[in-house]
Amino acid sequence: MNEKVVLAYSGGLDTSVTIQWFIDKGYDVVALCLDVGEGKDLDKVQQKALDMGAIESYVIDTTKEFADDFVSYAIYANSMYEGKYPLVSALSRPLISKKLVEVAHQSNADYVAHGCTGKGNDQVRFEVAIKSLDPALKVLAPVREWTWSREEEIDYAKEKNIPIPVNLDSPYSIDQNLWGRSNECGVLEDPWAKPPEDAYALTRNIKEAPDETEELVLHFENGLPKALNGVFYELDELIIKLNEIAGVHGIGRIDHVENRLVGIKSREVYETPGAKVILTAKHDLETITLTKDIAHFKPFIEQKFTEQIYNGLWFSPLSDSLRKMLKDMQQPVNGEVRLELYKGNVTVTGRRSDNSLYDEKLATYTNEDAFNQDASVGFIEIFGLPTKVKAMLDNGVKLYD
Amino acid sequence: MNEKVVLAYSGGLDTSVTIQWFIDKGYDVVALCLDVGEGKDLDKVQQKALDMGAIESYVIDTTKEFADDFVSYAIYANSMYEGKYPLVSALSRPLISKKLVEVAHQSNADYVAHGCTGKGNDQVRFEVAIKSLDPALKVLAPVREWTWSREEEIDYAKEKNIPIPVNLDSPYSIDQNLWGRSNECGVLEDPWAKPPEDAYALTRNIKEAPDETEELVLHFENGLPKALNGVFYELDELIIKLNEIAGVHGIGRIDHVENRLVGIKSREVYETPGAKVILTAKHDLETITLTKDIAHFKPFIEQKFTEQIYNGLWFSPLSDSLRKMLKDMQQPVNGEVRLELYKGNVTVTGRRSDNSLYDEKLATYTNEDAFNQDASVGFIEIFGLPTKVKAMLDNGVKLYD
Amino acid sequence: MNEKVVLAYSGGLDTSVTIQWFIDKGYDVVALCLDVGEGKDLDKVQQKALDMGAIESYVIDTTKEFADDFVSYAIYANSMYEGKYPLVSALSRPLISKKLVEVAHQSNADYVAHGCTGKGNDQVRFEVAIKSLDPALKVLAPVREWTWSREEEIDYAKEKNIPIPVNLDSPYSIDQNLWGRSNECGVLEDPWAKPPEDAYALTRNIKEAPDETEELVLHFENGLPKALNGVFYELDELIIKLNEIAGVHGIGRIDHVENRLVGIKSREVYETPGAKVILTAKHDLETITLTKDIAHFKPFIEQKFTEQIYNGLWFSPLSDSLRKMLKDMQQPVNGEVRLELYKGNVTVTGRRSDNSLYDEKLATYTNEDAFNQDASVGFIEIFGLPTKVKAMLDNGVKLYD
Amino acid sequence: MNEKVVLAYSGGLDTSVTIQWFIDKGYDVVALCLDVGEGKDLDKVQQKALDMGAIESYVIDTTKEFADDFVSYAIYANSMYEGKYPLVSALSRPLISKKLVEVAHQSNADYVAHGCTGKGNDQVRFEVAIKSLDPALKVLAPVREWTWSREEEIDYAKEKNIPIPVNLDSPYSIDQNLWGRSNECGVLEDPWAKPPEDAYALTRNIKEAPDETEELVLHFENGLPKALNGVFYELDELIIKLNEIAGVHGIGRIDHVENRLVGIKSREVYETPGAKVILTAKHDLETITLTKDIAHFKPFIEQKFTEQIYNGLWFSPLSDSLRKMLKDMQQPVNGEVRLELYKGNVTVTGRRSDNSLYDEKLATYTNEDAFNQDASVGFIEIFGLPTKVKAMLDNGVKLYD
Repeated sequence: MNEKVVLAYSGGLDTSVTIQWFIDKGYDVVALCLDVGEGKDLDKVQQKALDMGAIESYVIDTTKEFADDFVSYAIYANSMYEGKYPLVSALSRPLISKKLVEVAHQSNADYVAHGCTGKGNDQVRFEVAIKSLDPALKVLAPVREWTWSREEEIDYAKEKNIPIPVNLDSPYSIDQNLWGRSNECGVLEDPWAKPPEDAYALTRNIKEAPDETEELVLHFENGLPKALNGVFYELDELIIKLNEIAGVHGIGRIDHVENRLVGIKSREVYETPGAKVILTAKHDLETITLTKDIAHFKPFIEQKFTEQIYNGLWFSPLSDSLRKMLKDMQQPVNGEVRLELYKGNVTVTGRRSDNSLYDEKLATYTNEDAFNQDASVGFIEIFGLPTKVKAMLDNGVKLYD
Repeated sequence: MNEKVVLAYSGGLDTSVTIQWFIDKGYDVVALCLDVGEGKDLDKVQQKALDMGAIESYVIDTTKEFADDFVSYAIYANSMYEGKYPLVSALSRPLISKKLVEVAHQSNADYVAHGCTGKGNDQVRFEVAIKSLDPALKVLAPVREWTWSREEEIDYAKEKNIPIPVNLDSPYSIDQNLWGRSNECGVLEDPWAKPPEDAYALTRNIKEAPDETEELVLHFENGLPKALNGVFYELDELIIKLNEIAGVHGIGRIDHVENRLVGIKSREVYETPGAKVILTAKHDLETITLTKDIAHFKPFIEQKFTEQIYNGLWFSPLSDSLRKMLKDMQQPVNGEVRLELYKGNVTVTGRRSDNSLYDEKLATYTNEDAFNQDASVGFIEIFGLPTKVKAMLDNGVKLYD
Repeated sequence: MNEKVVLAYSGGLDTSVTIQWFIDKGYDVVALCLDVGEGKDLDKVQQKALDMGAIESYVIDTTKEFADDFVSYAIYANSMYEGKYPLVSALSRPLISKKLVEVAHQSNADYVAHGCTGKGNDQVRFEVAIKSLDPALKVLAPVREWTWSREEEIDYAKEKNIPIPVNLDSPYSIDQNLWGRSNECGVLEDPWAKPPEDAYALTRNIKEAPDETEELVLHFENGLPKALNGVFYELDELIIKLNEIAGVHGIGRIDHVENRLVGIKSREVYETPGAKVILTAKHDLETITLTKDIAHFKPFIEQKFTEQIYNGLWFSPLSDSLRKMLKDMQQPVNGEVRLELYKGNVTVTGRRSDNSLYDEKLATYTNEDAFNQDASVGFIEIFGLPTKVKAMLDNGVKLYD
Repeated sequence: MNEKVVLAYSGGLDTSVTIQWFIDKGYDVVALCLDVGEGKDLDKVQQKALDMGAIESYVIDTTKEFADDFVSYAIYANSMYEGKYPLVSALSRPLISKKLVEVAHQSNADYVAHGCTGKGNDQVRFEVAIKSLDPALKVLAPVREWTWSREEEIDYAKEKNIPIPVNLDSPYSIDQNLWGRSNECGVLEDPWAKPPEDAYALTRNIKEAPDETEELVLHFENGLPKALNGVFYELDELIIKLNEIAGVHGIGRIDHVENRLVGIKSREVYETPGAKVILTAKHDLETITLTKDIAHFKPFIEQKFTEQIYNGLWFSPLSDSLRKMLKDMQQPVNGEVRLELYKGNVTVTGRRSDNSLYDEKLATYTNEDAFNQDASVGFIEIFGLPTKVKAMLDNGVKLYD
């Protein structure tokens, strides 16, 4: 009996070639393709795997699970790796790993496999996640192993009658899910070169965006967006809807040279229109609903969580603790944010909440002022005392005596 | 002989009334007005102080000193208090304090004075800075002390023939220097209300910004901008120039509810067009010139430094150490950034540096690839080992034996 | 009808005088004395308050609540303020505040009161805690208000026939609960002076400690000590027992100049024999039960939590989130630690756990070695890649091409 | 002509076998042995390398350089990896790497080599340090490569007439320099087993330590110890002297299960008598000479620096910036600390400094009190304001109006 491998299958050239390569090596291949909201026709992908010779082929719609159990934490954490990248692929990898392990258990497979190369982050994310879910399960990485050049791969594909995609001459390497789209390779590898227009797919060029401002009101509960302009949606639906709306306005393009886990710098282009709108609004709502001490400490938790996820450590005790803390800290983040979308700009024009800690009577300079200004004298004396003692020492003023 | 007080004088109603109030109390008043790049006609202010009865009146142009010795560190630190506020007033307060102390020493004054109320940050910044420069010098804060309502203050002014500004009915409280303009009070005190157009002065509404993109190339040395489109400028001149250019494109409006040092939340509107352009470009240049370990650690230093400055602790041993470290970390930040300005957007379209750590041969997916993908297998095994051991324990897989 | 005040009453001179002072002012006084494990005879204290003229006098044994709901978190957090002070008084203040508010509500009191001076941390801890539990309740601080010298206070006491304690000439100011004993004032105020023997009460001088080593085994569950040498105890009982055992061996003396919240440095002498044993053992048990990423991140959480509690912010959303995270992170901290106590030393001689992540087969250098040393080659290549690229740039070695 | 390799040579079995192994492979071997204060007779080691067949053999006394340029920063940083390990071997590795590279350049060698196995930290430290000093120089690691068992290694040694050390049956793996001694392997691999007495060499058992207390006064300048009981020493001499003095008193034994860089937990036994005395004293002196803000922020810098060095990143831009900051922060750490050594205890009994920020007049509770207690009322009102506003919201008390 052949050994069995469950392969994370995308329908693209790399993983199609991988199926054939596994068959050549004598494996039975189970193809697994997940819908994480990238909007592709996955029925075709399912059939294609069977056409390639896979003994089983599964397509699972995990869009809602992806939004509710993975993207939600990126929202809680305002996750931006290096201040720029909202963890697009890094969020889907643990979900795909989980499903790979589940299918491997159901199918009594000996191996799971991914189609990543040896120089990216995703190989680490898959393999560490899989090990943490089933440390006894072995992982294969044929694309990293075979070390073919692009040309050799295509020769092999032609020889084996593997359909070559029509967009094969696309210079880009793309990954997409409902939280965004990432793009690297080709002309983008020169960080001085401006990304060409065809590098983008989800967003219009800002110069071609509408001349009219679009006003939105986003309603949040416990840190998550729940309604748009008064209409409630599931999280996955709301993100997809905002991707469309904000994409039209040219919102959410990111051009970033980032530090990969595997030690190199890489220039990446992202499009995250819905994420941009949601994170802008939610972060603003935090300004009136979080106490100052949480507002100033949460960024440390956010940065740590974001690095953990970027580094493939979704399934780890530390990430688990960080997730619980982030969710806990978001309980008071309820209310509404009004935004304007216009030619690449997301502008908050108002925020309100039943949990608001903003107090107009304390803040005002009118005669309604409720702030006791006399208290400031004592506050400054105590707050400045260490500075004063240090200055007395430095100035040769005798300390109190 | 009367006691002498050096007053930080702006020419506005509050500090004009303060001069009279001091005279009523029997003080000799020395007025001191600094030019920190806010673009006002300060000769008039100088004369006005004398007209009010000040015995001496000084105007000092500190624009260059402000840029070189204060704003430069906010650039090194990418300073954004709470991720939003680029430290406009917080940067000028220590400079004004320093000059107040210097003039007090020259004039043999007994006191220095500021015109801040008792509920803002600036009173703390002035008084702590002054104590750190001369712990024996006493500080007076008449506006905080007299606790008049606006109406009472105006009645006093009329009674004393103090000229009432024509824009007295302006609802706003404004502070400005070359790094930006802050605005609070009035209708802005309702955080759900959209700021009216007259709240802004340095920036055009994005809908009235030009329809043409403006491309800039900024040249940096050791973390500071030195040239614009090939022309070198002093830092203060460059900032002022960029304020004009970027202001036209509607860049740099900020609407933020912030946590003050004195324990309240306050809604503030800022305009920082030049700062927005400089910080966007510089932060991007850091992505290719800083090592990953510095890139990931520097944000902690940045946040600490920014909070120190916001909290009025410019003159303190910790701030001093942080400044040295920030400057040191910026030595490799040299190179050029190409930007496009368009209707509120500052878009980096390219970055390059002789110090670049980005290596196309390591990053590429072409056959020029210099990255040893085999090394990743070992890397993942070691990197994932703690996760695997934890999973073995949790799954009841026997640890190695 | 008189206004009513609930006073935190200790039975000492300050709070006894306070009762009289309140009566003089026309208040009805309700005395409240809590047992937090300091081992005093509180029945006498209860009667004394009535003798002083209090209309009601309560003594509440909160020893178990103090251990379970307050000290437990200091154990989770390995709390050591400034690396030295295990939060003795800082832990009892929120509990006392909570009880003051409860009694005030039951008694329909208008005020609560404490006997702290105006230069310590405890006034802040009481007042901030009380405000957070009932922001409408007013707090009185007569000792801070009356500003009598020690002599004036004694004159007043004599005049009013308030019993003067026999140890009045003790130079020390002492606070004690089951987690330890703090001592300040008098000769201790000279930080160069060695603390005299009479500054200590819970611990023997190490030179008078037994010549025989005492071996203990402490058993932990979820981060808390549960059993000593196989015998299970409630947490409060276990701490009290360890105070006795370790005190005999001269363990847990601390001499520290600390930075108070109110801006001054203060020399404090603490005795925390039980805490020293528990924290030493628990921290050691963490080395085999926590993953590396938690072990390296938890200190930031610990420091933040410890500063929050030191600063009187027990009842705050951030402290609440930190408590939940700390407890969550302690779930795997189960097992046993063997210790030796000898003349001031607490020496861990062994630790074991069913949750241990230490794996002898990975660590050993014998032929049982399960570690794949080949993996290290790839690990080092990737781990060192940023360093290498930086060095190539600095050495003028051409980057890969 | 043979290829030439410079080998870090210790004189032990592993590196002696390595010389022969290199000769067998056709290399010319240059042996390099550094004196880093471990107190061995290195002349014998030098000759032994030649006897083994090395073509050149160098012994360099780097004791002073090691103390001044490496250990000093561990003192500035109070370096304790995971709160326990004072970076003994981690400090010498960068120095040895530097000398290896220098000798390789002088000798025109093609390679440098170390004798580390593939599962420890030192292989990483050597290889990353060497790459950072000369990214073109190749590193060989024969012990990691040959993967012999202990028995196979001894068979090879016997066959090749390599002298077998008399203490071959020692179960321990030891590294030593003037900052301490580390020990692992053998019976220590069971973390429940108490370390046997023969695991220690620098320290007496505390039960055999003198019955008399020894009092010391250590004098510090800019964070470094300069004099002992009034006599000035070079840093290396002072450390060696304190190792002797404190070792007699049984001070500085450490038993720790630590997280290695390469992903495993390892039980280590350290002896660092001098380090324990110096760090205890210096940390105490910081309490009176550092401002509170530095005292509370420096631990983050310390932890980061310590992890960098533990992880072999001595030569990196971040470590360089951290070193400068640490040195800068230590400028005010001047003064004297009095200590008592007694049976394992290092007890500070007094500290004083011309830079002391401790102010008895502020701290005292006598009538010399210079602290303005009235200021505390205002301080607490402002400090507690966010808590109060939050509580008003939570309690349904209307915000101010």
